[in-house]
Amino acid sequence: MSVVEQVLGHLDATRAWQEDLYRDLHAHPELSLHETRTRAIIAERLCAVGCEVVEVGGGVVGILTNGTGPVVLHRADMDGLPVTEETGLPYASTETTVDDSGATVGLMHACGHDAHVTCLLGAVELLATEPGPWSGTFIAVFQPAEENAEGARAMIEAGLTSLVPRPDVAFGQHVLSHEAGVVATQSGPVLSAGDSVRITVFGKGSHGSMPHLGVDPVVLAASIVLRLQTIVAREVAPTDFAVVTVGSSTAGTKSNVIPDRATLLVNLRAYDLDVRAQVMAAVERIVRGECDAAGSPQPPTFEYYDQFPLTDNHADVTAKVTEAFREHFGSERVVALGRIPASEDFSRLPDAFGTPYTYWGVGGFPAGRGVPNHSPFFAPLIQPTLDTGTQAIVVAALAYLGKDNQ
Amino acid sequence: MSVVEQVLGHLDATRAWQEDLYRDLHAHPELSLHETRTRAIIAERLCAVGCEVVEVGGGVVGILTNGTGPVVLHRADMDGLPVTEETGLPYASTETTVDDSGATVGLMHACGHDAHVTCLLGAVELLATEPGPWSGTFIAVFQPAEENAEGARAMIEAGLTSLVPRPDVAFGQHVLSHEAGVVATQSGPVLSAGDSVRITVFGKGSHGSMPHLGVDPVVLAASIVLRLQTIVAREVAPTDFAVVTVGSSTAGTKSNVIPDRATLLVNLRAYDLDVRAQVMAAVERIVRGECDAAGSPQPPTFEYYDQFPLTDNHADVTAKVTEAFREHFGSERVVALGRIPASEDFSRLPDAFGTPYTYWGVGGFPAGRGVPNHSPFFAPLIQPTLDTGTQAIVVAALAYLGKDNQ
Amino acid sequence: MSVVEQVLGHLDATRAWQEDLYRDLHAHPELSLHETRTRAIIAERLCAVGCEVVEVGGGVVGILTNGTGPVVLHRADMDGLPVTEETGLPYASTETTVDDSGATVGLMHACGHDAHVTCLLGAVELLATEPGPWSGTFIAVFQPAEENAEGARAMIEAGLTSLVPRPDVAFGQHVLSHEAGVVATQSGPVLSAGDSVRITVFGKGSHGSMPHLGVDPVVLAASIVLRLQTIVAREVAPTDFAVVTVGSSTAGTKSNVIPDRATLLVNLRAYDLDVRAQVMAAVERIVRGECDAAGSPQPPTFEYYDQFPLTDNHADVTAKVTEAFREHFGSERVVALGRIPASEDFSRLPDAFGTPYTYWGVGGFPAGRGVPNHSPFFAPLIQPTLDTGTQAIVVAALAYLGKDNQ
Amino acid sequence: MSVVEQVLGHLDATRAWQEDLYRDLHAHPELSLHETRTRAIIAERLCAVGCEVVEVGGGVVGILTNGTGPVVLHRADMDGLPVTEETGLPYASTETTVDDSGATVGLMHACGHDAHVTCLLGAVELLATEPGPWSGTFIAVFQPAEENAEGARAMIEAGLTSLVPRPDVAFGQHVLSHEAGVVATQSGPVLSAGDSVRITVFGKGSHGSMPHLGVDPVVLAASIVLRLQTIVAREVAPTDFAVVTVGSSTAGTKSNVIPDRATLLVNLRAYDLDVRAQVMAAVERIVRGECDAAGSPQPPTFEYYDQFPLTDNHADVTAKVTEAFREHFGSERVVALGRIPASEDFSRLPDAFGTPYTYWGVGGFPAGRGVPNHSPFFAPLIQPTLDTGTQAIVVAALAYLGKDNQ
Repeated sequence: MSVVEQVLGHLDATRAWQEDLYRDLHAHPELSLHETRTRAIIAERLCAVGCEVVEVGGGVVGILTNGTGPVVLHRADMDGLPVTEETGLPYASTETTVDDSGATVGLMHACGHDAHVTCLLGAVELLATEPGPWSGTFIAVFQPAEENAEGARAMIEAGLTSLVPRPDVAFGQHVLSHEAGVVATQSGPVLSAGDSVRITVFGKGSHGSMPHLGVDPVVLAASIVLRLQTIVAREVAPTDFAVVTVGSSTAGTKSNVIPDRATLLVNLRAYDLDVRAQVMAAVERIVRGECDAAGSPQPPTFEYYDQFPLTDNHADVTAKVTEAFREHFGSERVVALGRIPASEDFSRLPDAFGTPYTYWGVGGFPAGRGVPNHSPFFAPLIQPTLDTGTQAIVVAALAYLGKDNQ
Repeated sequence: MSVVEQVLGHLDATRAWQEDLYRDLHAHPELSLHETRTRAIIAERLCAVGCEVVEVGGGVVGILTNGTGPVVLHRADMDGLPVTEETGLPYASTETTVDDSGATVGLMHACGHDAHVTCLLGAVELLATEPGPWSGTFIAVFQPAEENAEGARAMIEAGLTSLVPRPDVAFGQHVLSHEAGVVATQSGPVLSAGDSVRITVFGKGSHGSMPHLGVDPVVLAASIVLRLQTIVAREVAPTDFAVVTVGSSTAGTKSNVIPDRATLLVNLRAYDLDVRAQVMAAVERIVRGECDAAGSPQPPTFEYYDQFPLTDNHADVTAKVTEAFREHFGSERVVALGRIPASEDFSRLPDAFGTPYTYWGVGGFPAGRGVPNHSPFFAPLIQPTLDTGTQAIVVAALAYLGKDNQ
Repeated sequence: MSVVEQVLGHLDATRAWQEDLYRDLHAHPELSLHETRTRAIIAERLCAVGCEVVEVGGGVVGILTNGTGPVVLHRADMDGLPVTEETGLPYASTETTVDDSGATVGLMHACGHDAHVTCLLGAVELLATEPGPWSGTFIAVFQPAEENAEGARAMIEAGLTSLVPRPDVAFGQHVLSHEAGVVATQSGPVLSAGDSVRITVFGKGSHGSMPHLGVDPVVLAASIVLRLQTIVAREVAPTDFAVVTVGSSTAGTKSNVIPDRATLLVNLRAYDLDVRAQVMAAVERIVRGECDAAGSPQPPTFEYYDQFPLTDNHADVTAKVTEAFREHFGSERVVALGRIPASEDFSRLPDAFGTPYTYWGVGGFPAGRGVPNHSPFFAPLIQPTLDTGTQAIVVAALAYLGKDNQ
Repeated sequence: MSVVEQVLGHLDATRAWQEDLYRDLHAHPELSLHETRTRAIIAERLCAVGCEVVEVGGGVVGILTNGTGPVVLHRADMDGLPVTEETGLPYASTETTVDDSGATVGLMHACGHDAHVTCLLGAVELLATEPGPWSGTFIAVFQPAEENAEGARAMIEAGLTSLVPRPDVAFGQHVLSHEAGVVATQSGPVLSAGDSVRITVFGKGSHGSMPHLGVDPVVLAASIVLRLQTIVAREVAPTDFAVVTVGSSTAGTKSNVIPDRATLLVNLRAYDLDVRAQVMAAVERIVRGECDAAGSPQPPTFEYYDQFPLTDNHADVTAKVTEAFREHFGSERVVALGRIPASEDFSRLPDAFGTPYTYWGVGGFPAGRGVPNHSPFFAPLIQPTLDTGTQAIVVAALAYLGKDNQ
């Protein structure tokens, strides 16, 4: 019996509470940086299986030490989203929150973080239950606030790297719209770097019938929006990936009053840090040039927010994990992840330690009927999703911690 | 003693209560179509001097009949504005209202309608007190809701033209930033036609990283804004007046979500009804063409609102009134009004009757220190403003009603 | 018999040769600054009637001195245009020239300068023939190269102001599409200032499939063209006249090569020197700002050419001449000139002397069937056009030189 | 001794005349569809080694039949370019031609077609000299007019597919800026589909001072140029390759005349036929929409030209050839081709037969000092370039024709 088989031999036992825990977490999502209940449940379970438990920066870490050997970190994220659930599941969330405009909206685990937590807790218990065939340290990181890109940074700023051993390798996984039972890996950039920037450009207000007494920021913003299209169309190499989206453009409130400013909310994506830097520089150059062309009375302001790092899977680590997945799941259940235009803050954790990493996907849906993340209808199949996610964590960890691999 | 001198002989008597009334009205502004208190005060005074009083469409009309002869209509508007007064006057308004966003803002007579009412009530009393030297009918119309262009229409739709005699000539006046004591006249178009239109264009929402799955309405709106500039720059004759202002452009709320629509609030001004029609057609043509260029999935919508007519002073009427003003005030106090890019709904009243009209300005400020209408600092000098406005109404009326002019 | 009647008493005599001369000049147009034949004919006639003749800067001046008194200058322009005549007149031009592209095109008096010369020669002879009722000096200036705005400047630079007496008043007239027999006057700005500018903006060439290696000047030029629209639409007061036309935009020669520059030929018009300065500054500001926005590797260049001054008729001079016209022609033949968006370099001459001036129109066509200047079908009626133009010069001159007016 | 070694055993013999031939061809480039001299040289050599020679569509084909077995086609292109050579080589071209504007320019083999011809003639002789170890048919296609995408089509339209046997596999190769001695292969799309389109949009001419009487095509073209940027920026998936370049935009010739049309020369590139179709549809949709927005009086016209097909290397064929290259050259001399944004018309030939194909690159320069194709400095090293290209043809052919592979 292989090391993996030995450790996964207890899966029937963990599956029972994992499914209940998943339904409970799904029914009780919490907002980014407000994951109190979730964190308490996790901490209790980590204690129960003998982990050293560290609460840091809104997250909680379980350290499972089992003799000498490599240190493996696996991260799960915990937060839900302000989305009103429409799945109709018996365990659908009825939690609510209040959005920026004061309206009440639902809270929902619409991005599978409930599954991430459940799988990682299961994997910790499996590893703790069967310490014989492996040695080293397994660090289970439960991170808050992935959705707004603040959680990984919060844990790091609160001292994570001095509170837990430096890992030799780090992992993350995500439930995706692939077929349940499948895992998806890929070397190199798999999730884009993502940056948001709030750009404010200034005009000079005037009555709408007297444009010559003002400087029209509505026209200025329109020129900027059109000019920003040229970054992807002309400046980035056609073979490189980049996205520049102006998701919001707002100026003025009345037809006959020229306002004194306009605000653009712009989102930038790239799979390459040089391209990212090129795009950011181009955005600022264009905005400043357009403001000059308009005779804008005040320099534009740029406020960056929701900045997600690039997720760039390490070649050797990915190859090793993929090979282990193929051996365990069979080649037909290991597919190419592809490049996903979305972004993640997972990579900040290994980057803080200077640790190589890989991040993979776990299918969650009937074949051909995947639901996009963040949809109010996001309802992964409980199985084989939880089993696959739990096994994937164990298999990847044992590729480094298994005594047969050392 | 001339007819005018006879009628104005009682000005000392009216001035006393006029100044008090003005302060009272100024302290108690009312919103458009909510001029209840103002209307009650007016109705009472009209009754007191023997007018037939007609309440219609939110306004009130006093009909002063004095034998046979011409019928002269003079209109005053009554509404205040949602502007928080900052004049520091002892009689400044402390009234408030709630704006669209739910915030509390002040209410203010920031456009001089309190003076318009006061002058017209004074003129009615003067004419009523001295019926000897004139004959005919004087109709004093107190109109609601000038600020949103709804009041004149409301009175007409409620039956004004069947409730009062058809006038032979109609007048309106407005306190402007000229020097107090001055009246300003001009033949032809003096206030522009003004139309607002809410344009909604449709895209298709998508995640900001997947623009190819959507149709970007932010880019579409930007193209429209730039293209609309060509109406004035290329389509309207350089010698014609036209303004196309996009006072507000709004789309989306987040940087990384492509919204499904964008809204433009556009204001159009012209001094010529053909130019107005040309501009309106061009706006719609451009918006439709741009939506087609964008592959917009749904036709744009155009909702017109705040539509103000052209104020186009009748040549003969203006000449006659200007001559009467020169005789009474002296040429140095009668100046050229010029073309004012603002708009008024006054002309709907004479147009409903098919009556020629003229509309003049009354200065309200120390020389060189005029304050623009709608400013929170709009505080006309009580005198000689009220006297001048009252006299102007009487002088213009007697140019038609005075027995020496018949 | 009035002074005017006395001088015009010889019109029957001049009319005979004037009509022949007109047909001859019309059949033999000459290009700007190549008016050799025309100038020789003029000089001979000026000599014949006793003028002092001065050839200067490509033009010719006749000075008719008749005792003491005011000095009046009248200017006629002499050049034809590279337009292939299509009038079908028996005296149509068969002259040709070679245009910039090497093609042969016709030469034509398509702007009436043949009539201007003919009328002024006639007027000189009339004044010379009947010196009795007037005294002073009449200066007949025959100017080259009005069409390219170079002729007036050439005469001034060649010393005109030191070669002829300083005039007290200066006149010019132009055959227009009004009804023949009519003269058209107006005080203030009547012909716009006109400036052309060749703008070159720089990109960086690249293969069309590798835009990221270049800087695309085609996109840059397009942005500039759209942004220039905002000058008239937003920056110039809606009540002011301004035109910004990009008459030519050229860049590149092949679909798959990104060129390294783009050229715009822009024409600017204004009726006010402040507006002209505002528009020119805005053009340069916009072009520079757009170049910065594009990351253009080299500053844009601006080459001004074909710069025409404003023609701004002096109020008193215009009033005096208009009154004289009314008296002679009758009020019904004196109409308002209106503002003409075209431009002239006439005003450089009086401006060089610091002399007030007025410039009027002479109708040349059957009522309602005017042909625009520069059209290949521009064929004014010989009469009453020549008579009217000749009389207008004499009448205006005698308003100052007639002994009854001194 | 392997089959390949046997056939290449005669390379010393061919090398001698190949180098001379290469210098001769380089010195005498011919324009597309005027490759008379080149074709005659080729036909003579093909005859000399015993090929059946077919002249078709401006090209020439040598058919080398050697018993039964597979049919392999290899294509070389023959045309030079209107580029003035600046290599300073002793055998540099001194040929000239006259370009569209009438100017004399040099003619140059700036794209390596001289090497392509030389290598293929060498390979034919090698195969003809040593028929023992292989059997089947080798078809050497010398194609005219690759540079303007007309040559392959011309041969097909002239009946190529009925004049030569249907090949089982087809090859092409190209000298690139890689290091000499290297071959470069890749499966899937390696050269983009390329299409040029001349777009004419119509306005209405007018004097520059009277824009309201015209429809400005300069502004229309500018709007189109900016809007076309959104195809790549917003409509094509960020992970797909597409280029939309407006290489030329021209309208008007004078600053003060609004022209009546504008012309855009647009180049489109894609690596996927669906993306190509999407881009072409988007271009037409945008142009039509913008013309409608402008009130254009006449529909735009679209004239497609220089249309290059996609070069999409067959997976199995590429794998087999790459493996043969590795065996012969060693793995270190077989590199990844990468995707090249340029285009080729080679694939029309196999597509006409329905034959799978692969197209590879041959390095031609000192390491790190590659010169881009079409440069006036394009001077590949004669060796090892010719040897490598000749061997590559033989090796790929024998992967199918070698008796050891059948």
